[in-house]
Amino acid sequence: MSDDLQQRARGSGEDGGDAGVRILRDGEAIMRLIERLFPICRSITGDGVRQTLKILQEYAPLDIEEVPTGTKVLDWRVPREWNVRQAYIARLDGTRVVDFATHNLHVVQYSTPVDRTVGIDELRRHLHAIADRPDWIPYRTSYYSEDWGFCLSQRQFAGLSDPVYRVVIDSSLEDGHLTYGELLVPGRCDETVLVSTHICHPSLANDNLSGIAVALSVAQYIRSITPHYNYRFLFIPGTIGSITWLALNEHKLGSIKHGLVLSCLGDRGGLSYKQSRRGDAGIDRIVAHVFKHDGGNGRVVPFVPFGYDERQYCSPGYDLPVGCLMRTEPGKYPEYHTSADNPDLLSGASLAHSIAILRQIIGVIEGNAITRNNSPKGEPQLGRRGLYRVLGGQSSVEDAQMALLWVLNLSDGRRSLLDIAERAEMPFTAIRAAADSLCATDLLSLVNP
Amino acid sequence: MSDDLQQRARGSGEDGGDAGVRILRDGEAIMRLIERLFPICRSITGDGVRQTLKILQEYAPLDIEEVPTGTKVLDWRVPREWNVRQAYIARLDGTRVVDFATHNLHVVQYSTPVDRTVGIDELRRHLHAIADRPDWIPYRTSYYSEDWGFCLSQRQFAGLSDPVYRVVIDSSLEDGHLTYGELLVPGRCDETVLVSTHICHPSLANDNLSGIAVALSVAQYIRSITPHYNYRFLFIPGTIGSITWLALNEHKLGSIKHGLVLSCLGDRGGLSYKQSRRGDAGIDRIVAHVFKHDGGNGRVVPFVPFGYDERQYCSPGYDLPVGCLMRTEPGKYPEYHTSADNPDLLSGASLAHSIAILRQIIGVIEGNAITRNNSPKGEPQLGRRGLYRVLGGQSSVEDAQMALLWVLNLSDGRRSLLDIAERAEMPFTAIRAAADSLCATDLLSLVNP
Amino acid sequence: MSDDLQQRARGSGEDGGDAGVRILRDGEAIMRLIERLFPICRSITGDGVRQTLKILQEYAPLDIEEVPTGTKVLDWRVPREWNVRQAYIARLDGTRVVDFATHNLHVVQYSTPVDRTVGIDELRRHLHAIADRPDWIPYRTSYYSEDWGFCLSQRQFAGLSDPVYRVVIDSSLEDGHLTYGELLVPGRCDETVLVSTHICHPSLANDNLSGIAVALSVAQYIRSITPHYNYRFLFIPGTIGSITWLALNEHKLGSIKHGLVLSCLGDRGGLSYKQSRRGDAGIDRIVAHVFKHDGGNGRVVPFVPFGYDERQYCSPGYDLPVGCLMRTEPGKYPEYHTSADNPDLLSGASLAHSIAILRQIIGVIEGNAITRNNSPKGEPQLGRRGLYRVLGGQSSVEDAQMALLWVLNLSDGRRSLLDIAERAEMPFTAIRAAADSLCATDLLSLVNP
Repeated sequence: MSDDLQQRARGSGEDGGDAGVRILRDGEAIMRLIERLFPICRSITGDGVRQTLKILQEYAPLDIEEVPTGTKVLDWRVPREWNVRQAYIARLDGTRVVDFATHNLHVVQYSTPVDRTVGIDELRRHLHAIADRPDWIPYRTSYYSEDWGFCLSQRQFAGLSDPVYRVVIDSSLEDGHLTYGELLVPGRCDETVLVSTHICHPSLANDNLSGIAVALSVAQYIRSITPHYNYRFLFIPGTIGSITWLALNEHKLGSIKHGLVLSCLGDRGGLSYKQSRRGDAGIDRIVAHVFKHDGGNGRVVPFVPFGYDERQYCSPGYDLPVGCLMRTEPGKYPEYHTSADNPDLLSGASLAHSIAILRQIIGVIEGNAITRNNSPKGEPQLGRRGLYRVLGGQSSVEDAQMALLWVLNLSDGRRSLLDIAERAEMPFTAIRAAADSLCATDLLSLVNP
Repeated sequence: MSDDLQQRARGSGEDGGDAGVRILRDGEAIMRLIERLFPICRSITGDGVRQTLKILQEYAPLDIEEVPTGTKVLDWRVPREWNVRQAYIARLDGTRVVDFATHNLHVVQYSTPVDRTVGIDELRRHLHAIADRPDWIPYRTSYYSEDWGFCLSQRQFAGLSDPVYRVVIDSSLEDGHLTYGELLVPGRCDETVLVSTHICHPSLANDNLSGIAVALSVAQYIRSITPHYNYRFLFIPGTIGSITWLALNEHKLGSIKHGLVLSCLGDRGGLSYKQSRRGDAGIDRIVAHVFKHDGGNGRVVPFVPFGYDERQYCSPGYDLPVGCLMRTEPGKYPEYHTSADNPDLLSGASLAHSIAILRQIIGVIEGNAITRNNSPKGEPQLGRRGLYRVLGGQSSVEDAQMALLWVLNLSDGRRSLLDIAERAEMPFTAIRAAADSLCATDLLSLVNP
Repeated sequence: MSDDLQQRARGSGEDGGDAGVRILRDGEAIMRLIERLFPICRSITGDGVRQTLKILQEYAPLDIEEVPTGTKVLDWRVPREWNVRQAYIARLDGTRVVDFATHNLHVVQYSTPVDRTVGIDELRRHLHAIADRPDWIPYRTSYYSEDWGFCLSQRQFAGLSDPVYRVVIDSSLEDGHLTYGELLVPGRCDETVLVSTHICHPSLANDNLSGIAVALSVAQYIRSITPHYNYRFLFIPGTIGSITWLALNEHKLGSIKHGLVLSCLGDRGGLSYKQSRRGDAGIDRIVAHVFKHDGGNGRVVPFVPFGYDERQYCSPGYDLPVGCLMRTEPGKYPEYHTSADNPDLLSGASLAHSIAILRQIIGVIEGNAITRNNSPKGEPQLGRRGLYRVLGGQSSVEDAQMALLWVLNLSDGRRSLLDIAERAEMPFTAIRAAADSLCATDLLSLVNP
């Protein structure tokens, strides 16, 4: 797809104004956005995605991109667009026993249209329940294999005692578009930070309305500062969305300095970070550093080629420095991909904490620099410059003065402030503050300011 | 020694036919071979070695090589050949109190001929017993210092109360040959796997009839397949045998890709592997991988320059990638180098397990390859090729599908399947099976097939 | 400052004779030297330093260097010289309640002259005590900020109840010199080992009369051997002394192979070693090795840019291979920088142990060499050369023979004897002894003898 085609498909220009933008001030505001988005039936294509992105535009001027069905994207093709109007299982007397209008998880995503009376045995082959969770509806998809099906609670499943039922899925599976949102916040250098989050799940709160809302909040924050780096936010359907974006934007990949996939950021568990495929990329070190100084509660796990869109960004042909930030890892909490992943699973405090940590991560990304000590032989006389206590003989030194000594000792034109913070086992913010003091007295220079 | 000389000294040609070959089908068959070889008095030279190798020829067509006494081999010379007809300590009335005919450990190996009446004090200086093991006869040698001596149990030693005894050792120490066996199973490439085992010990079962029998069984297995690599099996006297082989075969060393010394493989302890001097040779990683997926019971120990023929293969002038596979390490079990190292110490199950692990090791050696993902940008669409489940949304993935994802993600033309298995923490066999599936759909190529 | 100026300022020539030198034979002799030096009021300049260095000259022919006030040294200038004749706080009736004549810690170092009657409130702003140590006088300095002050015990502080007191500090702060001692013991090669210790503290025993006395004892030892390396001993005021020496001796830095700062070596705690900034310098490995074989009690801590003169030697413009040897680290024992750091805190046994370990460190420095096995293919026949037991078959090997095998196996012309000792987990002395035996039979050569 040419850039022209993309341009024409856009719902709004990149330079859209900010008049009337809603602000996600805190965890509660984010919870309200999540609750508003929750009932919409999203999938990897379709009107639910468009409706979601339109709501997001109330908060940040993201572009809505439309890529036509059939577009060749890497090893894949953009699929047909799927929409559902109604879907149910009814007794022959018309009583609906399972109804998409009640919960949009009830229909297997990408189910083909059906309107038939079927025997109970055939019906059961199209049903999905979770045996040991009597009230939870599972979430299932059949994107690339034409089929139809219903998801229902084990209690509903057990209650199906009629010999025949009517099944109706009034869906369409037609040529259309794959829709995604993109927001570029320009910075002062050529390099870019990528933030990617998947938007393809229907009524599931943690996975991934939490990621969407957190990404949006972070986008608002970046727009409020003048960042050094460009920040590119992608709101895309999982797998096929990142594959599509990668295929259409290969020329932009070389400038990606750091990247994060955001998912499952609202549950009450602690934070997790899945490393990039490289394992030692800058973003891997940055997140580990921030976790360490956030009480050491965050958990860093090595890359595995299963999960969300980091699978695509970290495929061997790209091997981008992209990790994944989560709270409880997908699949590791029982409510995952069931109707129990609803707004009750989330907490405003968790959402706010996720955002706070992301801001700290951005603080390191933005504030890091290679430094050079301009007085590298011996220690410079800090007291003369008002940077050091005048009374000598004490047995210890304050953190702020220790930070000065560390920065001076390690600023050899090769190490970054993050290197120094790691070696000193001090928070990046303390090391950066020391560097700023030293720069103000010309004892230090930033090599790559 | 020239190749011609070696050729003339051979007992059989390398192309000897297989008619009537005996097969070592299981641990019990191996135990029977060990029991048959047990009574023979082997040493680093002599007829016991020849007799042993002739019996091995019933199982595999190994060449018997003869290297003349005095041949200069590295820093050493091939010693004179030693044979014993009879040896005993007798009372003056003729009663034999220690007799080589009873157990061939009774005479110190390489004892010079003697036929004298000696006082008890002088005799004791030629006797070796183990104070805290009343019934065990130790095994002692004096290859390179002319002397004579007897080994006996502490009980026998304590019973020597006469003032004088007659000692007879009817041995010969004469110019002859050093004898060893060699079997080359040709493969399809230029590189060779070396399997070496020592044959110089008399009636000791674990050390090293177990190693001999296991090597022979593995040789039969290799002959039953069409291996990628050449496999060279050496049945040699310890130290002087490997020194002799190395001296006469330096032109063959460059092609050695992997090597294993086999010793003490029949006792009831768990497996041990002593790394090559390099510590990170391919064989070191392969054995560690196989051990890990064998329940993690095998023990990997670092190289030390004490032990068996790996000392010679790993001397700094060669530094070959040769490790040593054992069960309980030599010297670490009390029966080591005593008459208690007899067939009762062994178990058929241990022997069979040793062979099974060796076959797994050979499986990795033979099956390893560098791979390249032919669709490295994003994940290829596996579902379309029948390689991936069609129903999405589950919280976990099966091992077989995970193996596919790992192989695709890490096949960048630099990593081997073993690298991938290690990173994925999955068995090599699972990773190799995934690679085979992907090769069948042209998604993967072997870079060095 | 030119070399000429330095030459003229010297108190004695480098070639001073040894007639009548006192010897520090044991811990008790060292304790007596410490007790003799204890009462002197040293500072970073002044007559107390000169008096101390003169006493040290009774033990070793060190040069006394004088560097004029105002000399530009790196980012600093040599300060004015400070001397005190008397100092006290008295009641108006003349009774002295705090008196420098009682303890020289009572006056803040570099206090400006004062002779006034001051109200109690103003006085208290010039007083320093330790609230939770009623009887200890702290040690405080104000080298680079003109001020005056007294240190006193909390009990004395609490007893000050008069409304006004007379304060007298009869000090001078005038142009003069910074004084330090230097001793070069010449070796047989171009490279140098630096041993540096600070001499600027008044009546404090562990910090650093212990370091001074231990350095002096080691200097006597080095003078008693014919060392391979040059050894340069510096007895200098902390911080400004090393900055001055570095500034005036930059042309000598390139030849520094190893360096140690010595401080706090007499207390009853175990040894500590603070690594050089590099962390993997030769001296770092050597001290770790010696600690390991000293029962493993010594503690190795990573470099931090706070402490003694290693801060200057390890500043990024120099990054010299200099670590710091201590017993309990400065600041980590409660008596540090108080009047409780007196000779009672020390033990002769600790001082003797510190010296013994330093001699072992010097043993490795002096004895290390890269080695090459001259018979690297297979093991050479050690028995023939009288280096190996003649009776074979035992299950283990003696340490001395194991050391021979390790040296032979690892002497590939790239590894040092220290590398071998580390790999073999044997003491350096055992490995060096084995190497000497092998050299005597021409099986081994030293590559850098």
